[in-house]
Amino acid sequence: MRPINTRRKNLVAVAKGGVLDRRSFMLSGLALSGSLVSSNVVASGQSSTSNINQSLPAWMKAPGGSDIGYGVPAKYEKHIQRNRAEHAPETSMFSIWHTPIENQRGIITPNGLHFSVSHNGVPDIDPHKHKLMIHGLVDKPLSFDVESLLRYPMVSAVNFLECAGNTAPNAVSLTPLDQSCQELFGQVSGAEWSGVPLKYILQEAGLKPSAKWVIVEGADGGSHSRSIPVSKLLDDAIIALYQNGERLRPSQGYPMRLFVPGWEGNANIKWLHRLEVTDTPAFTKDESGLYSDILDDGKIQRFSFHMDVKSVITHPSGKQVLPEKKGFYEISGLAWSGYGKIKQVEVSADGGKTWAPAHLDLPILSKSLTRFSVPWQWDGRSTVLLSRATDELGRVQPTRQQWREKFASYSFNHYNAIQAWHISSDGIVENSYV
Amino acid sequence: MRPINTRRKNLVAVAKGGVLDRRSFMLSGLALSGSLVSSNVVASGQSSTSNINQSLPAWMKAPGGSDIGYGVPAKYEKHIQRNRAEHAPETSMFSIWHTPIENQRGIITPNGLHFSVSHNGVPDIDPHKHKLMIHGLVDKPLSFDVESLLRYPMVSAVNFLECAGNTAPNAVSLTPLDQSCQELFGQVSGAEWSGVPLKYILQEAGLKPSAKWVIVEGADGGSHSRSIPVSKLLDDAIIALYQNGERLRPSQGYPMRLFVPGWEGNANIKWLHRLEVTDTPAFTKDESGLYSDILDDGKIQRFSFHMDVKSVITHPSGKQVLPEKKGFYEISGLAWSGYGKIKQVEVSADGGKTWAPAHLDLPILSKSLTRFSVPWQWDGRSTVLLSRATDELGRVQPTRQQWREKFASYSFNHYNAIQAWHISSDGIVENSYV
Repeated sequence: MRPINTRRKNLVAVAKGGVLDRRSFMLSGLALSGSLVSSNVVASGQSSTSNINQSLPAWMKAPGGSDIGYGVPAKYEKHIQRNRAEHAPETSMFSIWHTPIENQRGIITPNGLHFSVSHNGVPDIDPHKHKLMIHGLVDKPLSFDVESLLRYPMVSAVNFLECAGNTAPNAVSLTPLDQSCQELFGQVSGAEWSGVPLKYILQEAGLKPSAKWVIVEGADGGSHSRSIPVSKLLDDAIIALYQNGERLRPSQGYPMRLFVPGWEGNANIKWLHRLEVTDTPAFTKDESGLYSDILDDGKIQRFSFHMDVKSVITHPSGKQVLPEKKGFYEISGLAWSGYGKIKQVEVSADGGKTWAPAHLDLPILSKSLTRFSVPWQWDGRSTVLLSRATDELGRVQPTRQQWREKFASYSFNHYNAIQAWHISSDGIVENSYV
Repeated sequence: MRPINTRRKNLVAVAKGGVLDRRSFMLSGLALSGSLVSSNVVASGQSSTSNINQSLPAWMKAPGGSDIGYGVPAKYEKHIQRNRAEHAPETSMFSIWHTPIENQRGIITPNGLHFSVSHNGVPDIDPHKHKLMIHGLVDKPLSFDVESLLRYPMVSAVNFLECAGNTAPNAVSLTPLDQSCQELFGQVSGAEWSGVPLKYILQEAGLKPSAKWVIVEGADGGSHSRSIPVSKLLDDAIIALYQNGERLRPSQGYPMRLFVPGWEGNANIKWLHRLEVTDTPAFTKDESGLYSDILDDGKIQRFSFHMDVKSVITHPSGKQVLPEKKGFYEISGLAWSGYGKIKQVEVSADGGKTWAPAHLDLPILSKSLTRFSVPWQWDGRSTVLLSRATDELGRVQPTRQQWREKFASYSFNHYNAIQAWHISSDGIVENSYV
């Protein structure tokens, strides 16, 4: 075995502000670890027993505890929780729970931490009494109980889900609020969703020639409902029954929800119980009220389903403090697009003057979170970090100014501008408009 | 919008026993759903209010409840749990918890249901007092606390993890035990693992020319340890810190574990605290005792790291009862290989006389669970279902007889033979040796 060269190689900068080339990157000499004094090392079976007993922690001196039927996180990680964003008066049942996205690695959000938005609270549905019906412009109205649907052929896909209002504070606030990544970006998560393709259900009921839309309704107290084009339902939509390998949880629509990959969260109707096939949208209260946009000329942009290309650096991010005032850090974050795969993410460590392409972790999946990273040698001076994603259709994130010129007069939804994090010379990370 | 053809197409059989071609498959006429009488349908806002109020379930008449900071499964799914397999006397701390794999869809196992094997119980480790040291044949012995490691560059990959002893009952029992998929196959799970590549740590410490093995030791009460070749650690091994987007749980090695993709579970040392670089294996108690195989000539096969190509039909599977005595079912299952990607899975519904290739769900990832499925029209007669996986190296699952001729005299580990499920005319599914 040839030894690995432990000399510090020349660290090749690929952009200013300390963004390093990943291939030339060697950790040797970065000094994150502490050197061991050799005599303190407990060699395998060769050190004196008394020495070992003194140095061993309590958990190495006795057998451990039992496992349990359904595991839970370590007690030392109990502070990693979703936070409720109070978005409306206390009497409202509208609630938003933000995922702590700056604590996530990879592209899967654990079910316990997946963000959730509920317009009318979380209903407690008995799956044995729940039915899904399909009616309207079909040859044969049908009704399905949960057991029947569980027998249908299923497909799975890893997809992101994002609320239309994610990152709205940066769309509306004229000065950057001092918020964490969870507070600003906590309404996007990633999961493997499994369920029955909608096309099977529509096939079985038989669409009439005039069928163009489906009014999709939930069984919550407010019957949250949206109109979805038949074309999307025949494409890649599913009746989701499983999330990350287990049945949906109540706040994700148990016992079943619509899942329309890449489309705004509120269109993915939870607690799904009714599909009414029509020739026109229903203009339900939920789509006419909350999720339509009034344009400058007074016209209404009725449907803006797709979530656009977007990215955010999660490590480091808002309200964090870099533990050392200069030195090596990995910049890592997430990118996604409701139109397909992420093609490229560029990172800047000098406020947007120079950019370098980030490494994208495999797998790069369509309409899924994609993890990017670059090595970064911070020189200790205040600077601004940014990420800019491009998807396979060539869509690129706009600057905040570009986004606001186009949309701000009528919308705070679908904000997807480039996010900036300011790093002070004290290592404090803050939301920034650059 | 052109209507979808709702006539039942000719169902094209691709193997005997009712295995259908997926492309020609149409669900129309399969009658899993019930027809609705049109007058019972509640059309959007057009039915009489009194009628609606009478027919609505309780959860549609009132606001729902609140969400919580860390979500849990629906109360109606509480029976989906891991089961402890009692494998040794009660005084032993050796425990195995089986994942309910027949309840999983997709390729991700939720963290709460991931199988776990612990040789000495689950230690309760304070991460602030935990250290990882690397010493032996290195230029510079090093010590890392958890906070330091969390600053290193990380990578993520979706991989399976399987205990060497998974499915051992079918290796040793001369008659097929009436066991469920959980009981027989519950020591394999899939997750996205994120952490620091071992090569960074080995680079930083500096391997001496004679370095060939690393003795990897856990901080549990029995110091579970294995010798791992340096070549594997420089290839794709990581110090795993995250599982499915959150920090490892205690039974998975919190605060850190070795993860060696594709290799037997016990080599993925949990509660990792020591890496001793050597020129020879240590023959630790764990590798000499439990996980070495005595050959027919009395010699010992010391290391059998790779988990071989394997598959199992999870839907339907052991101890289940098909709800209808004939008709349509989807056959679905999981395949995996410690050598790379799954290339093909074939399914037989006539006891192995004829086979048809199954559909493989994307993404197909290296050393990962891969989901396969075929549509199946059951004629109601007793039969036997089988699946046979082939990986990208061309490795194919053996029959049980072939496996036993080669290995049974000295091992019950690494059993990867083709699994058969017998279906009785009553729809009862049972473990079978065909």
